[in-house]
Amino acid sequence: MKKTVITLADGRELFYYDSGDGEARGGYPDRRPLEPMHRAAETRYDEAQGEWIAIAAHRQNRTYKPPADQCPLDPTHGDRLTEIPAPDYEVVVFENRFPSLGGPDGGRCEVVCFTSEHEKSFADLTEAQASLVLEAWTDRTADLLARPDVRQVYMFENRGEEIGVTLAHPHGQIYAFPYLAPKMERAVTQAAAYRERTGRNLFEDLVERESAGERVVDENEHWIAFTPYAARWPYEAHLYPKRRTPDFTALDDAQRAAFPSIYLSLLRRFDGLFPAPEGGAPNRTPYIAAWHQAPKRAPGAATEIALHCEIFTVRRAPGKLKYLAGAESGMGAFASDTTPEQAALALRNAGR
Amino acid sequence: MKKTVITLADGRELFYYDSGDGEARGGYPDRRPLEPMHRAAETRYDEAQGEWIAIAAHRQNRTYKPPADQCPLDPTHGDRLTEIPAPDYEVVVFENRFPSLGGPDGGRCEVVCFTSEHEKSFADLTEAQASLVLEAWTDRTADLLARPDVRQVYMFENRGEEIGVTLAHPHGQIYAFPYLAPKMERAVTQAAAYRERTGRNLFEDLVERESAGERVVDENEHWIAFTPYAARWPYEAHLYPKRRTPDFTALDDAQRAAFPSIYLSLLRRFDGLFPAPEGGAPNRTPYIAAWHQAPKRAPGAATEIALHCEIFTVRRAPGKLKYLAGAESGMGAFASDTTPEQAALALRNAGR
Repeated sequence: MKKTVITLADGRELFYYDSGDGEARGGYPDRRPLEPMHRAAETRYDEAQGEWIAIAAHRQNRTYKPPADQCPLDPTHGDRLTEIPAPDYEVVVFENRFPSLGGPDGGRCEVVCFTSEHEKSFADLTEAQASLVLEAWTDRTADLLARPDVRQVYMFENRGEEIGVTLAHPHGQIYAFPYLAPKMERAVTQAAAYRERTGRNLFEDLVERESAGERVVDENEHWIAFTPYAARWPYEAHLYPKRRTPDFTALDDAQRAAFPSIYLSLLRRFDGLFPAPEGGAPNRTPYIAAWHQAPKRAPGAATEIALHCEIFTVRRAPGKLKYLAGAESGMGAFASDTTPEQAALALRNAGR
Repeated sequence: MKKTVITLADGRELFYYDSGDGEARGGYPDRRPLEPMHRAAETRYDEAQGEWIAIAAHRQNRTYKPPADQCPLDPTHGDRLTEIPAPDYEVVVFENRFPSLGGPDGGRCEVVCFTSEHEKSFADLTEAQASLVLEAWTDRTADLLARPDVRQVYMFENRGEEIGVTLAHPHGQIYAFPYLAPKMERAVTQAAAYRERTGRNLFEDLVERESAGERVVDENEHWIAFTPYAARWPYEAHLYPKRRTPDFTALDDAQRAAFPSIYLSLLRRFDGLFPAPEGGAPNRTPYIAAWHQAPKRAPGAATEIALHCEIFTVRRAPGKLKYLAGAESGMGAFASDTTPEQAALALRNAGR
């Protein structure tokens, strides 16, 4: 894998990740007349809930559903200048121009483009391409965890307009939080309490309990995917390495080699849940893929938290969405419209 | 206030609340041939997050956006049989036919119709009508808290299709949880820690700090509304009684009398945030109004938690919504696109 670092016109960093050594991405400077970066995001503590909130008012002006021929995540072609100066790329990561984090309180937001091909989806990638994305995630995790202002590195992908995606190009995001995000804070607390109570690791026991059961969706020698016992979403799957691993940087070669096939298959299962729309295009199920990794500097966290991905869709039936309304958004109380066992069966049957 | 209790054809309870003593609502039986109620909801504990999840698969079949002439929340007219057997009502509450709670694990879901007039909105009510809704909320709180299977009584209103509302008739909901909902659990924990640390009440201090500041939206002698310091949503206001009060049943007459004007005004401020659509109809801002009340049986909770309403909209600009995507839904990490100070100013200016 070859990594090439450049600086964009407004001072942001950009990283090209290439599978071979031959590409010379560094020879293309950013020719745009950009204003200097706006890093005004601040973080505020909600004392009634014990949670940090990012305040990023400049994001109101972020790029909103541009037409396909103005996609800022395409490579640069001639005078159509995009975020990526090179005329082609394999995987590219750069600092978000409209970040939610990264003001004086620290943290950083990055964008990961999974492929230069605008019409593709992560599920369309080859195993070699998915493997290169994994390399990029691993490299970014190591880099960002090394920053003194970062406590947790979070990779995620939002796919589909129903999720609120404003750019159609296949891409994900990285939030390097200067604090523990609320779900991570709770997982750390729960895992510490579980250790105290049982002497064992919460996630190891959780994976072991699910491994034998009816909620398993897929597995290979090194990874297992299941719908969790207490699922929140209409269709949800959690993907774990079978050997507990704190973060991407700690995966061994065998785990890495076994990752692309099961991850691509899992994403395709989500697309297979619903019939294709009329007109011949394949169904694209809206989903969120959320990568949990052990944070640093939380007591015990690095040893207790297990790397895993939580993938879920907000689509509960064709044309019907799960909304987060008064129960969920107002009181944090999730009500699922499907049973986890039905959802696991549907995901198993959606394999292709 | 007069309360009339009847039983619907499938065994559910219904309560009419009338401002005068003259109405004879009880004389109208439910003439529908309903199947017996389906109370299959179950609750499951998510050990990795320490949160309870309701699983209610039968809700997939709930009534979904019926045309206005088939609204199940209208009064019954002739042979058009609805959920409400009487030919008219003022405020009516009944058990939800598609509940998320109420299986063997306990709890109960109810629906509150704010008026019989289908085209109205809560903000259109008179002060007398809003006062009657408050009476109904108070009565339901007392009734439901008295049930041995209930730990927390939560009133909320979802308004607008963008929130996922499937019935346009002006109505709210009541969730009587058999557990503490996640946001309440955290508030109880935070308030207890704050007491331990400072010897004071978290919510009293929070209201006192906001009272003097630039985030106040509105106030009268007994109530105050402000945008919180660490707001999560594009436009958000929290409404508190100035004298800390645990729940609706503990409000005194002066607080009750002062409630309708400020609450109606607050809802109208949300509608005033955005211009009216073309065609002459008024703007209806989608919102969630979430009433937090002290639970029972949580150590210290009844004395620490303060009754208050959190109202917020998911609309960040005309035609643009705040989505809960990877950051919020995946990691619980909120990023606000507005500053709370800007939002408070906009809500103050939206008064009418």
